Amino acid sequence: MTSELTPARRRPAYDAASLLDVAVAVFNERGYDGTSMEDLARAAGITKSSFYHHVEGKESLLAAACDRALGALFEVRDEPASREGRTVDRFAHVLLRTTETLLTELPYVTLLLRVRGNTPVEQAALEQRRGFDRYTADLLSQAIADGDLRADLDAALATRLTFGMVTSIAEWFRPTGETPPAAVARATVDLIMRGLRP
Amino acid sequence: MTSELTPARRRPAYDAASLLDVAVAVFNERGYDGTSMEDLARAAGITKSSFYHHVEGKESLLAAACDRALGALFEVRDEPASREGRTVDRFAHVLLRTTETLLTELPYVTLLLRVRGNTPVEQAALEQRRGFDRYTADLLSQAIADGDLRADLDAALATRLTFGMVTSIAEWFRPTGETPPAAVARATVDLIMRGLRP
Repeated sequence: MTSELTPARRRPAYDAASLLDVAVAVFNERGYDGTSMEDLARAAGITKSSFYHHVEGKESLLAAACDRALGALFEVRDEPASREGRTVDRFAHVLLRTTETLLTELPYVTLLLRVRGNTPVEQAALEQRRGFDRYTADLLSQAIADGDLRADLDAALATRLTFGMVTSIAEWFRPTGETPPAAVARATVDLIMRGLRP
Repeated sequence: MTSELTPARRRPAYDAASLLDVAVAVFNERGYDGTSMEDLARAAGITKSSFYHHVEGKESLLAAACDRALGALFEVRDEPASREGRTVDRFAHVLLRTTETLLTELPYVTLLLRVRGNTPVEQAALEQRRGFDRYTADLLSQAIADGDLRADLDAALATRLTFGMVTSIAEWFRPTGETPPAAVARATVDLIMRGLRP
Protein backbone atom coordinates (compact mmCIF):
# COMPACT_ATOMS: atom_id res chain seq x y z
CA MET A 1 0.00 0.00 0.00
CA THR A 2 1.51 3.34 -0.99
CA SER A 3 1.18 6.29 1.35
CA GLU A 4 -0.97 8.23 -1.18
CA LEU A 5 -3.67 5.61 -0.83
CA THR A 6 -3.93 5.49 2.96
CA PRO A 7 -7.17 7.11 4.12
CA ALA A 8 -5.31 9.52 6.41
CA ARG A 9 -3.41 11.06 3.47
CA ARG A 10 -6.32 11.38 1.02
CA ARG A 11 -7.75 14.86 1.17
CA PRO A 12 -11.49 14.57 0.55
CA ALA A 13 -12.92 16.97 -2.03
CA TYR A 14 -15.93 17.39 0.24
CA ASP A 15 -16.73 17.21 3.90
CA ALA A 16 -20.18 16.67 5.40
CA ALA A 17 -20.85 20.44 5.63
CA SER A 18 -20.10 21.21 1.99
CA LEU A 19 -22.09 18.18 0.83
CA LEU A 20 -25.00 19.56 2.87
CA ASP A 21 -24.72 22.86 0.95
CA VAL A 22 -24.86 20.94 -2.33
CA ALA A 23 -27.80 18.81 -1.17
CA VAL A 24 -29.81 21.84 0.01
CA ALA A 25 -29.28 23.57 -3.34
CA VAL A 26 -30.51 20.47 -5.21
CA PHE A 27 -33.50 19.97 -2.86
CA ASN A 28 -34.51 23.61 -3.43
CA GLU A 29 -34.16 23.22 -7.18
CA ARG A 30 -35.91 19.87 -7.71
CA GLY A 31 -37.91 19.44 -4.54
CA TYR A 32 -36.94 17.01 -1.78
CA ASP A 33 -39.28 14.25 -2.99
CA GLY A 34 -38.00 14.53 -6.56
CA THR A 35 -34.30 14.22 -5.59
CA SER A 36 -32.45 10.89 -5.45
CA MET A 37 -29.06 10.13 -3.85
CA GLU A 38 -27.93 9.62 -7.44
CA ASP A 39 -28.91 13.26 -8.22
CA LEU A 40 -27.02 14.50 -5.15
CA ALA A 41 -23.87 12.53 -6.00
CA ARG A 42 -24.00 13.84 -9.58
CA ALA A 43 -24.39 17.45 -8.37
CA ALA A 44 -21.39 17.00 -6.05
CA GLY A 45 -19.39 15.37 -8.83
CA ILE A 46 -18.64 12.25 -6.80
CA THR A 47 -19.87 8.65 -6.91
CA LYS A 48 -22.93 7.53 -5.00
CA SER A 49 -20.79 5.29 -2.80
CA SER A 50 -18.45 8.21 -1.96
CA PHE A 51 -21.53 10.22 -1.06
CA TYR A 52 -22.73 7.47 1.28
CA HIS A 53 -19.27 7.52 2.88
CA HIS A 54 -20.07 11.03 4.17
CA VAL A 55 -23.80 10.91 4.85
CA GLU A 56 -26.35 8.29 5.88
CA GLY A 57 -28.94 9.22 3.31
CA LYS A 58 -31.35 11.79 1.96
CA GLU A 59 -33.43 12.04 5.12
CA SER A 60 -30.39 12.71 7.35
CA LEU A 61 -29.41 15.57 5.01
CA LEU A 62 -32.90 17.05 5.29
CA ALA A 63 -32.76 16.69 9.07
CA ALA A 64 -29.36 18.44 9.25
CA ALA A 65 -30.56 21.24 6.95
CA CYS A 66 -33.76 21.84 8.97
CA ASP A 67 -31.77 21.74 12.22
CA ARG A 68 -29.46 24.44 10.92
CA ALA A 69 -32.36 26.74 9.92
CA LEU A 70 -34.35 26.07 13.09
CA GLY A 71 -31.25 26.43 15.27
CA ALA A 72 -30.60 29.89 13.80
CA LEU A 73 -34.23 30.92 14.42
CA PHE A 74 -34.27 29.67 18.00
CA GLU A 75 -31.00 31.47 18.72
CA VAL A 76 -32.87 34.71 17.93
CA ARG A 77 -35.26 33.92 20.77
CA ASP A 78 -32.35 33.71 23.23
CA GLU A 79 -30.85 37.11 22.39
CA PRO A 80 -31.07 39.68 25.22
CA ALA A 81 -33.15 42.10 23.10
CA SER A 82 -35.68 39.30 22.50
CA ARG A 83 -36.02 38.66 26.23
CA GLU A 84 -35.78 42.08 27.92
CA GLY A 85 -37.71 45.35 27.66
CA ARG A 86 -41.21 46.21 26.44
CA THR A 87 -42.87 43.42 24.49
CA VAL A 88 -43.41 45.60 21.42
CA ASP A 89 -39.65 46.24 21.24
CA ARG A 90 -38.92 42.53 21.77
CA PHE A 91 -41.36 41.75 18.92
CA ALA A 92 -39.69 44.29 16.61
CA HIS A 93 -36.27 42.82 17.45
CA VAL A 94 -37.41 39.25 16.78
CA LEU A 95 -38.96 40.39 13.50
CA LEU A 96 -35.72 42.09 12.40
CA ARG A 97 -33.49 39.18 13.40
CA THR A 98 -35.82 36.58 11.85
CA THR A 99 -35.68 38.50 8.57
CA GLU A 100 -31.88 38.77 8.80
CA THR A 101 -31.65 35.03 9.54
CA LEU A 102 -33.74 34.24 6.48
CA LEU A 103 -31.39 36.40 4.38
CA THR A 104 -28.12 34.99 5.77
CA GLU A 105 -29.28 31.34 5.85
CA LEU A 106 -31.35 31.69 2.68
CA PRO A 107 -31.05 28.18 1.14
CA TYR A 108 -31.57 26.50 4.52
CA VAL A 109 -34.58 28.61 5.52
CA THR A 110 -36.04 28.25 1.99
CA LEU A 111 -35.88 24.46 2.35
CA LEU A 112 -37.44 24.63 5.83
CA LEU A 113 -40.29 26.78 4.47
CA ARG A 114 -41.06 24.19 1.81
CA VAL A 115 -41.25 21.23 4.20
CA ARG A 116 -44.73 19.75 3.93
CA GLY A 117 -44.64 16.98 6.53
CA ASN A 118 -44.61 13.69 4.60
CA THR A 119 -41.93 11.99 6.72
CA PRO A 120 -41.07 11.92 10.46
CA VAL A 121 -38.14 14.31 9.83
CA GLU A 122 -40.46 16.77 8.06
CA GLN A 123 -43.14 16.41 10.73
CA ALA A 124 -40.59 17.17 13.46
CA ALA A 125 -39.35 20.25 11.57
CA LEU A 126 -42.94 21.46 11.04
CA GLU A 127 -43.67 21.01 14.75
CA GLN A 128 -40.66 23.18 15.64
CA ARG A 129 -41.70 25.80 13.10
CA ARG A 130 -45.16 25.90 14.69
CA GLY A 131 -43.48 26.40 18.08
CA PHE A 132 -41.66 29.45 16.71
CA ASP A 133 -44.91 30.74 15.19
CA ARG A 134 -46.67 30.44 18.57
CA TYR A 135 -43.80 32.32 20.22
CA THR A 136 -44.09 35.26 17.80
CA ALA A 137 -47.92 35.24 17.95
CA ASP A 138 -47.71 35.41 21.77
CA LEU A 139 -45.37 38.42 21.61
CA LEU A 140 -47.72 40.20 19.21
CA SER A 141 -50.78 39.45 21.39
CA GLN A 142 -49.01 40.75 24.46
CA ALA A 143 -47.94 43.95 22.67
CA ILE A 144 -51.60 44.56 21.69
CA ALA A 145 -52.66 43.96 25.31
CA ASP A 146 -49.98 46.47 26.43
CA GLY A 147 -51.59 49.07 24.13
CA ASP A 148 -48.41 49.33 22.03
CA LEU A 149 -49.95 47.80 18.88
CA ARG A 150 -53.35 48.55 17.28
CA ALA A 151 -56.28 47.36 19.42
CA ASP A 152 -58.28 46.39 16.29
CA LEU A 153 -55.73 43.77 15.20
CA ASP A 154 -56.56 40.06 15.11
CA ALA A 155 -53.28 38.80 16.60
CA ALA A 156 -53.28 35.43 14.81
CA LEU A 157 -54.05 37.01 11.43
CA ALA A 158 -51.54 39.85 11.92
CA THR A 159 -48.84 37.29 12.82
CA ARG A 160 -49.55 35.26 9.68
CA LEU A 161 -49.49 38.37 7.47
CA THR A 162 -46.31 39.68 9.11
CA PHE A 163 -44.31 36.49 8.76
CA GLY A 164 -45.92 35.85 5.37
CA MET A 165 -44.22 39.01 4.15
CA VAL A 166 -40.92 37.88 5.70
CA THR A 167 -41.00 34.37 4.25
CA SER A 168 -42.04 35.65 0.80
CA ILE A 169 -38.60 37.32 0.59
CA ALA A 170 -37.13 33.85 0.02
CA GLU A 171 -39.03 33.70 -3.29
CA TRP A 172 -37.17 36.57 -4.93
CA PHE A 173 -34.13 37.64 -2.88
CA ARG A 174 -30.73 36.83 -4.41
CA PRO A 175 -27.53 37.63 -2.46
CA THR A 176 -25.99 38.87 -5.73
CA GLY A 177 -28.87 41.26 -6.44
CA GLU A 178 -29.04 45.05 -6.21
CA THR A 179 -30.63 45.41 -2.78
CA PRO A 180 -28.33 44.64 0.17
CA PRO A 181 -29.74 42.27 2.84
CA ALA A 182 -29.61 44.95 5.56
CA ALA A 183 -31.80 47.28 3.43
CA VAL A 184 -34.33 44.50 2.83
CA ALA A 185 -34.53 43.64 6.54
CA ARG A 186 -34.85 47.29 7.57
CA ALA A 187 -37.57 48.04 4.96
CA THR A 188 -39.54 44.97 6.04
CA VAL A 189 -39.49 45.84 9.73
CA ASP A 190 -40.30 49.51 9.02
CA LEU A 191 -43.27 48.66 6.84
CA ILE A 192 -44.71 46.11 9.27
CA MET A 193 -44.15 48.03 12.52
CA ARG A 194 -45.72 51.18 11.03
CA GLY A 195 -48.63 49.03 9.90
CA LEU A 196 -49.11 47.43 13.32
CA ARG A 197 -48.64 50.46 15.61
CA PRO A 198 -51.67 52.56 16.68
CA MET B 1 -78.25 0.90 -31.08
CA THR B 2 -80.50 1.67 -28.08
CA SER B 3 -81.28 5.29 -27.28
CA GLU B 4 -79.41 5.08 -23.92
CA LEU B 5 -76.16 4.53 -25.80
CA THR B 6 -76.38 7.38 -28.28
CA PRO B 7 -73.85 10.10 -27.45
CA ALA B 8 -76.53 12.77 -27.31
CA ARG B 9 -78.36 10.99 -24.49
CA ARG B 10 -75.31 10.15 -22.32
CA ARG B 11 -74.88 12.75 -19.63
CA PRO B 12 -71.13 13.20 -18.98
CA ALA B 13 -70.08 13.03 -15.31
CA TYR B 14 -67.64 15.85 -16.06
CA ASP B 15 -67.33 18.77 -18.39
CA ALA B 16 -64.11 20.59 -19.25
CA ALA B 17 -64.58 23.14 -16.43
CA SER B 18 -65.00 20.58 -13.66
CA LEU B 19 -62.08 18.50 -14.98
CA LEU B 20 -60.01 21.70 -14.79
CA ASP B 21 -60.96 22.05 -11.10
CA VAL B 22 -59.82 18.48 -10.49
CA ALA B 23 -56.58 18.97 -12.43
CA VAL B 24 -55.71 22.20 -10.58
CA ALA B 25 -56.25 20.49 -7.22
CA VAL B 26 -53.94 17.62 -8.23
CA PHE B 27 -51.29 19.99 -9.69
CA ASN B 28 -51.29 21.95 -6.40
CA GLU B 29 -50.99 18.75 -4.36
CA ARG B 30 -48.32 16.92 -6.35
CA GLY B 31 -46.72 19.67 -8.39
CA TYR B 32 -47.33 20.09 -12.13
CA ASP B 33 -44.14 18.25 -13.15
CA GLY B 34 -44.95 15.32 -10.86
CA THR B 35 -48.49 14.82 -12.24
CA SER B 36 -49.31 12.46 -15.13
CA MET B 37 -52.53 12.29 -17.19
CA GLU B 38 -52.98 8.90 -15.46
CA ASP B 39 -52.98 10.70 -12.07
CA LEU B 40 -55.54 13.22 -13.34
CA ALA B 41 -57.84 10.54 -14.74
CA ARG B 42 -57.62 8.58 -11.47
CA ALA B 43 -58.44 11.71 -9.42
CA ALA B 44 -61.47 12.36 -11.66
CA GLY B 45 -62.54 8.73 -11.42
CA ILE B 46 -62.63 8.26 -15.20
CA THR B 47 -60.42 6.47 -17.71
CA LYS B 48 -57.47 8.15 -19.34
CA SER B 49 -59.15 7.94 -22.74
CA SER B 50 -62.31 9.59 -21.35
CA PHE B 51 -60.10 12.31 -19.96
CA TYR B 52 -58.49 12.87 -23.36
CA HIS B 53 -62.00 13.13 -24.81
CA HIS B 54 -62.40 16.38 -22.82
CA VAL B 55 -58.93 17.89 -22.81
CA GLU B 56 -55.90 17.88 -25.12
CA GLY B 57 -53.34 17.20 -22.41
CA LYS B 58 -51.64 18.35 -19.25
CA GLU B 59 -50.19 21.51 -20.76
CA SER B 60 -53.55 22.72 -22.09
CA LEU B 61 -54.97 22.29 -18.58
CA LEU B 62 -52.13 24.36 -17.12
CA ALA B 63 -52.69 27.02 -19.81
CA ALA B 64 -56.43 27.18 -19.06
CA ALA B 65 -55.78 27.39 -15.30
CA CYS B 66 -53.20 30.19 -15.66
CA ASP B 67 -55.52 32.04 -18.06
CA ARG B 68 -58.30 31.95 -15.50
CA ALA B 69 -56.07 33.34 -12.72
CA LEU B 70 -54.43 35.96 -14.96
CA GLY B 71 -57.78 36.93 -16.48
CA ALA B 72 -59.19 37.63 -13.01
CA LEU B 73 -56.12 39.74 -12.11
CA PHE B 74 -56.21 41.76 -15.31
CA GLU B 75 -59.95 42.42 -14.84
CA VAL B 76 -59.00 44.22 -11.62
CA ARG B 77 -56.90 46.62 -13.67
CA ASP B 78 -59.93 47.53 -15.78
CA GLU B 79 -62.21 48.42 -12.88
CA PRO B 80 -63.14 52.14 -12.68
CA ALA B 81 -61.56 52.53 -9.20
CA SER B 82 -58.27 51.18 -10.60
CA ARG B 83 -58.31 53.77 -13.40
CA GLU B 84 -59.73 56.94 -11.89
CA GLY B 85 -58.80 59.20 -8.98
CA ARG B 86 -55.58 59.76 -7.05
CA THR B 87 -52.92 57.15 -7.72
CA VAL B 88 -52.61 56.21 -4.04
CA ASP B 89 -56.33 55.36 -3.97
CA ARG B 90 -56.02 53.42 -7.22
CA PHE B 91 -53.09 51.48 -5.69
CA ALA B 92 -55.10 50.71 -2.52
CA HIS B 93 -58.04 49.54 -4.66
CA VAL B 94 -55.84 47.28 -6.80
CA LEU B 95 -54.24 45.88 -3.64
CA LEU B 96 -57.65 45.10 -2.11
CA ARG B 97 -59.06 43.53 -5.26
CA THR B 98 -55.89 41.52 -5.95
CA THR B 99 -56.12 40.09 -2.43
CA GLU B 100 -59.83 39.32 -2.89
CA THR B 101 -59.07 37.65 -6.24
CA LEU B 102 -56.44 35.45 -4.62
CA LEU B 103 -59.00 34.42 -1.98
CA THR B 104 -61.89 33.74 -4.38
CA GLU B 105 -59.75 32.02 -7.06
CA LEU B 106 -57.45 30.40 -4.50
CA PRO B 107 -56.51 27.11 -6.27
CA TYR B 108 -56.00 28.86 -9.62
CA VAL B 109 -53.89 31.71 -8.20
CA THR B 110 -51.92 29.23 -6.05
CA LEU B 111 -51.04 27.27 -9.18
CA LEU B 112 -50.08 30.46 -11.03
CA LEU B 113 -47.81 31.49 -8.14
CA ARG B 114 -45.97 28.16 -8.32
CA VAL B 115 -45.26 28.35 -12.05
CA ARG B 116 -41.50 28.30 -12.53
CA GLY B 117 -41.17 28.63 -16.28
CA ASN B 118 -39.97 25.25 -17.59
CA THR B 119 -42.32 25.12 -20.60
CA PRO B 120 -43.63 27.69 -23.13
CA VAL B 121 -47.00 27.76 -21.33
CA GLU B 122 -45.26 28.50 -18.02
CA GLN B 123 -42.99 31.10 -19.59
CA ALA B 124 -46.00 32.88 -21.11
CA ALA B 125 -47.79 32.86 -17.73
CA LEU B 126 -44.68 34.19 -15.98
CA GLU B 127 -44.37 36.97 -18.57
CA GLN B 128 -47.98 38.05 -17.91
CA ARG B 129 -47.39 37.92 -14.14
CA ARG B 130 -44.37 40.18 -14.59
CA GLY B 131 -46.57 42.58 -16.57
CA PHE B 132 -48.99 42.77 -13.64
CA ASP B 133 -46.06 43.27 -11.24
CA ARG B 134 -44.78 46.19 -13.35
CA TYR B 135 -48.27 47.70 -13.36
CA THR B 136 -48.50 47.65 -9.54
CA ALA B 137 -44.89 48.87 -9.13
CA ASP B 138 -45.65 51.82 -11.43
CA LEU B 139 -48.72 52.77 -9.36
CA LEU B 140 -46.66 52.64 -6.16
CA SER B 141 -43.85 54.74 -7.69
CA GLN B 142 -46.34 57.34 -8.89
CA ALA B 143 -48.02 57.53 -5.45
CA ILE B 144 -44.59 58.18 -3.87
CA ALA B 145 -43.91 60.91 -6.47
CA ASP B 146 -47.33 62.44 -5.62
CA GLY B 147 -46.23 62.66 -1.96
CA ASP B 148 -49.03 60.29 -0.89
CA LEU B 149 -46.70 57.44 0.15
CA ARG B 150 -43.47 57.63 2.19
CA ALA B 151 -40.64 59.40 0.34
CA ASP B 152 -38.05 57.03 1.88
CA LEU B 153 -39.56 53.96 0.20
CA ASP B 154 -37.69 51.97 -2.46
CA ALA B 155 -40.64 51.45 -4.83
CA ALA B 156 -39.43 48.13 -6.26
CA LEU B 157 -38.69 46.68 -2.82
CA ALA B 158 -41.94 47.98 -1.30
CA THR B 159 -43.89 46.41 -4.19
CA ARG B 160 -42.20 43.05 -3.65
CA LEU B 161 -42.85 43.14 0.10
CA THR B 162 -46.47 44.24 -0.38
CA PHE B 163 -47.39 41.54 -2.88
CA GLY B 164 -45.22 39.04 -0.99
CA MET B 165 -47.57 39.47 1.95
CA VAL B 166 -50.58 39.04 -0.35
CA THR B 167 -49.30 35.93 -2.10
CA SER B 168 -48.20 34.33 1.20
CA ILE B 169 -51.91 34.16 2.13
CA ALA B 170 -52.23 31.29 -0.37
CA GLU B 171 -49.91 29.23 1.86
CA TRP B 172 -52.29 29.10 4.83
CA PHE B 173 -55.77 30.40 3.93
CA ARG B 174 -58.54 27.79 3.82
CA PRO B 175 -62.07 28.83 2.73
CA THR B 176 -63.45 26.61 5.52
CA GLY B 177 -61.30 28.28 8.21
CA GLU B 178 -62.27 30.69 10.98
CA THR B 179 -61.33 33.98 9.31
CA PRO B 180 -63.70 35.11 6.53
CA PRO B 181 -62.04 36.19 3.25
CA ALA B 182 -63.31 39.78 3.57
CA ALA B 183 -61.62 40.13 6.98
CA VAL B 184 -58.34 38.79 5.59
CA ALA B 185 -58.42 41.19 2.63
CA ARG B 186 -59.32 44.18 4.82
CA ALA B 187 -56.60 43.41 7.41
CA THR B 188 -53.98 43.00 4.66
CA VAL B 189 -54.78 46.32 2.97
CA ASP B 190 -54.98 48.13 6.34
CA LEU B 191 -51.61 46.85 7.48
CA ILE B 192 -49.86 47.62 4.20
CA MET B 193 -51.38 51.06 3.53
CA ARG B 194 -50.61 52.20 7.10
CA GLY B 195 -47.06 50.92 6.57
CA LEU B 196 -46.63 52.74 3.25
CA ARG B 197 -48.25 56.11 4.05
CA PRO B 198 -46.13 58.98 5.42
